[in-house]
Amino acid sequence: MSHNEIVIFLVAISIMLFFARFLGEVFSKLKQPAIIGEIIAGILLGPTVFGNIWPELQGTLFPQSGNVSLVLNGIVQLAVIMLLIVSGLEVNLALIAKQGKTAFYTSTLGMVIPFVAGFIPFYFFSNSFGANDGDNLIFALFMGTALSISALPVIARTLMDMNLLKSEIGVIIIASAIVNDLFGWIFFSIIIGMISSGGSANYLTQIGGIFLFLAVLFFIGKPVIDRLVPRIQRNYSYPGSILSFIFIAGLTAAAITEAAGIHAIFGAFMIGVVVGDSSHLKEETREIIHQFVTNIFAPLFFISIGLKVDFVANFNPLLVSIVLVLAIFGKVTGSGLGAKLGGMSNPEAMTIGFGMNSRGAMEIILGLLALQAGIINEEVFVALVVMALVTSLVSAPMMSIFLAKMKKFETLTQIIDPKLILFTTRNEKTAVIQELTGTVASQAGISPNRMFDEVMSREAAFAPVIIPGLALPHAKLDVKRPWIAISVNRKGYRYSDEITEPVYLTVLLISPKDKPELHLNLLAGIVGAFSEEDAIKSLVETTDKVSIAAHFTERT
Amino acid sequence: MSHNEIVIFLVAISIMLFFARFLGEVFSKLKQPAIIGEIIAGILLGPTVFGNIWPELQGTLFPQSGNVSLVLNGIVQLAVIMLLIVSGLEVNLALIAKQGKTAFYTSTLGMVIPFVAGFIPFYFFSNSFGANDGDNLIFALFMGTALSISALPVIARTLMDMNLLKSEIGVIIIASAIVNDLFGWIFFSIIIGMISSGGSANYLTQIGGIFLFLAVLFFIGKPVIDRLVPRIQRNYSYPGSILSFIFIAGLTAAAITEAAGIHAIFGAFMIGVVVGDSSHLKEETREIIHQFVTNIFAPLFFISIGLKVDFVANFNPLLVSIVLVLAIFGKVTGSGLGAKLGGMSNPEAMTIGFGMNSRGAMEIILGLLALQAGIINEEVFVALVVMALVTSLVSAPMMSIFLAKMKKFETLTQIIDPKLILFTTRNEKTAVIQELTGTVASQAGISPNRMFDEVMSREAAFAPVIIPGLALPHAKLDVKRPWIAISVNRKGYRYSDEITEPVYLTVLLISPKDKPELHLNLLAGIVGAFSEEDAIKSLVETTDKVSIAAHFTERT
Repeated sequence: MSHNEIVIFLVAISIMLFFARFLGEVFSKLKQPAIIGEIIAGILLGPTVFGNIWPELQGTLFPQSGNVSLVLNGIVQLAVIMLLIVSGLEVNLALIAKQGKTAFYTSTLGMVIPFVAGFIPFYFFSNSFGANDGDNLIFALFMGTALSISALPVIARTLMDMNLLKSEIGVIIIASAIVNDLFGWIFFSIIIGMISSGGSANYLTQIGGIFLFLAVLFFIGKPVIDRLVPRIQRNYSYPGSILSFIFIAGLTAAAITEAAGIHAIFGAFMIGVVVGDSSHLKEETREIIHQFVTNIFAPLFFISIGLKVDFVANFNPLLVSIVLVLAIFGKVTGSGLGAKLGGMSNPEAMTIGFGMNSRGAMEIILGLLALQAGIINEEVFVALVVMALVTSLVSAPMMSIFLAKMKKFETLTQIIDPKLILFTTRNEKTAVIQELTGTVASQAGISPNRMFDEVMSREAAFAPVIIPGLALPHAKLDVKRPWIAISVNRKGYRYSDEITEPVYLTVLLISPKDKPELHLNLLAGIVGAFSEEDAIKSLVETTDKVSIAAHFTERT
Repeated sequence: MSHNEIVIFLVAISIMLFFARFLGEVFSKLKQPAIIGEIIAGILLGPTVFGNIWPELQGTLFPQSGNVSLVLNGIVQLAVIMLLIVSGLEVNLALIAKQGKTAFYTSTLGMVIPFVAGFIPFYFFSNSFGANDGDNLIFALFMGTALSISALPVIARTLMDMNLLKSEIGVIIIASAIVNDLFGWIFFSIIIGMISSGGSANYLTQIGGIFLFLAVLFFIGKPVIDRLVPRIQRNYSYPGSILSFIFIAGLTAAAITEAAGIHAIFGAFMIGVVVGDSSHLKEETREIIHQFVTNIFAPLFFISIGLKVDFVANFNPLLVSIVLVLAIFGKVTGSGLGAKLGGMSNPEAMTIGFGMNSRGAMEIILGLLALQAGIINEEVFVALVVMALVTSLVSAPMMSIFLAKMKKFETLTQIIDPKLILFTTRNEKTAVIQELTGTVASQAGISPNRMFDEVMSREAAFAPVIIPGLALPHAKLDVKRPWIAISVNRKGYRYSDEITEPVYLTVLLISPKDKPELHLNLLAGIVGAFSEEDAIKSLVETTDKVSIAAHFTERT
């Protein structure tokens, strides 16, 4: 590069980084994924806005050809490879195994339905959308794939912002998005193979190559890497040597897959998956790579998208609407249906469906390649980018709507139900507990005998009377939500031999097995409701079940 | 880039990264700076070795022209800018202020002498070394500067490996290297200004520009940055936003200085200095940038050096010898003399001289620019790189030699001197202590009265008899090393009113004020020498001073 070209190169790269990161931070503040801001920054700096206002300056700073353009593209290429290594590192194979069934249904239907929804119309009407004759199969396969790959990084970010990343729904969404990603990339590389072989029959060789690469990587590469990682961390400079190792391995795999016609990023992503899966990789190493790549290189890639195309001139409202409707309809119904088959409730399934709906990273990369290869035209590319932006923007608000509909059972107010308050004259512990467990068991739909046995076996271990007059039998069982039933005996009864004071109030608490903290919180909440001295006495005199329920609620 | 070019690009970059990091780690294992391994890796992969064995393959993988070469050079350019930002971050302005005097002398003479040593011969014999007529001033200025800039990153690494980074000598070396660096870069940019203005008179404008840039940066930029850093860290994503900020600022400054004809890396380095000086910058941010840049980007730069030139074909033994002798002679005598003026002993000054001798980063960058600008030819460039390698390699072993010569006073063996053992008949505390302090004071070259007063004022605070028969008066004073003097009174004397047992042995310990731990260690060591019951009795009967000294030595 000449002196002038170096100046332009430096100015261009600092402007790109500044605008991408600035709008990225603005969108983060708005609780939206930063990637949306980064893509919009590109549209602003590209031919769409800046290029329309001041075409000469835009053309000088961000030239479409020449040395500066070549070097910038090379750096963006390296940035995408780094981004894909990091995306691969984020894939947690163990998580998929754990959330197996639900994740499998969610991701499979969440891919198949949008794929079909994209494939069929674009196969039959490919010519209307600018595909060349004879290319309609590749075009339709591409559209199907582009509509069916969820954006793992965007989804992870959205869940993090919504504080859902570690929740049950969050884990299912992430696990499904990972499966989706893995299969999406295999689809992706098959299509790339077809593109690079011009759609001819030898794409079968390409597909064979992909599976050969995956087989070698997982059966030879994975065990080797798993042994190398701890050795490198132990014997050589830390974290320097492992950082370099990850990039050398990622770049080498990228070179191999690129040479095999599958595209560099597939190899980079897969190396990320394999290295990230090694339990020996330290969190610090992940963090350094993650921070550097997502804050320096990824923004350079996402902003570069908008620099290539005029989003106004190539905006085809009909096409954009079709792509949007097919994408959202296909993904939300597909993933939602899958989640429902996996045992989720309706609002949970809808939350998962919209959680999986974010598109953004992969199909844009795919779209760029298809654009370069002439499979799609600018209008289709613009429609895909707009679809990515809209689906990512819509994800968090839509999830919030369905989350609100989901009934939660985490506080006494949410759990205590006047219908589960009984006035009893039974005056023997076993009889009182039997009445309570019977009532709860019929509501929770599980065996009353098992519940009774479980409660009684706990009783044997320790007497559940902490406050005089209140007995608190409880158990953890295979229930989906916690249950509380209350039995009031106005006269009081002798709970056990050791306890001399009569018990007036017997509160049964049954919690789900997998939520031990919730169990303890609820126990503490019940006890806390009787911290005032005469609380039990006055409560026992109440005859209205709603008032009794309200007593628990008011204190918590 | 075409498909094939992308493959070559990826293969080239992974090979470069692998060899650079691998040899870098090998040299680290050998307790040598990694940068040496990285440069040698380039010589191996470049025209010198690989290109001689298999020129076709070498030319394909690492082409000297075309798209791949252009993109690789662009990435190396970005790598150098990143490296310089990191180097700037490592500059600790507060350290210089603290080590002011010694660092000032060491760095000033350590620059002036090698500069003169380089300037004079190359000014008068410039034509013999390939400089064009009329270019002899720039050529000689360049050679002087190239010989006088120490390599801060190499020095820091060497000191770290030798476990000297936090020692007094280490801190002086680092502080001097920082001053050296700052001035070196100003020299550097002046010469670059002269090169880019073709040596014409308008280089004065360039020099003005440099000082204007520095003035704006330090008087406006520094306070602004110092207020921005904590705000960015607080209000935006951490560490993402501050990472991006540092690179955006670095790249912008690089663009400004490049546009002004001073060269991009000057701006990058200075932004690093200013940002790194902000006390608000968190250690974690520094660490992420440091690790990523030194392990991914810096190696790509250092290996690229060897890829450009044939080191065998351009090896001029006479020139290499001259450059080596001038560089080592100039730097070691210059820095050593400076250190001596700053109050260091001879072996300390030599250690500092060889510590400052490492060259490696800056003059190679400078050399590359001069090579591109036609100021120097390949032979001079090769001589500079060889000089950088040799000086860096030689640094640690030479420092070890002089460190060993430096007499240390840290153990009783090193401190107790038979000449400071007295047999006395004085039998009064004040008289005995006066005799001891008088002896030590004459040796240590300080006032006997001050020492006596100090010891007696300690006496008043607590009685220094821990073991019966042994008195241990002691004080901390402005001495350079600890002193021990021993007085033996065979008959014993009454030390004070409270102590009834006679004292036979009076041991005076005087330690430097700034080493309180050493003082305690020595006290403990003296007491420890008399842990056996009759030790004092048997020692008092000895008439040989060497045996008495040996008694202390054997026990410790």
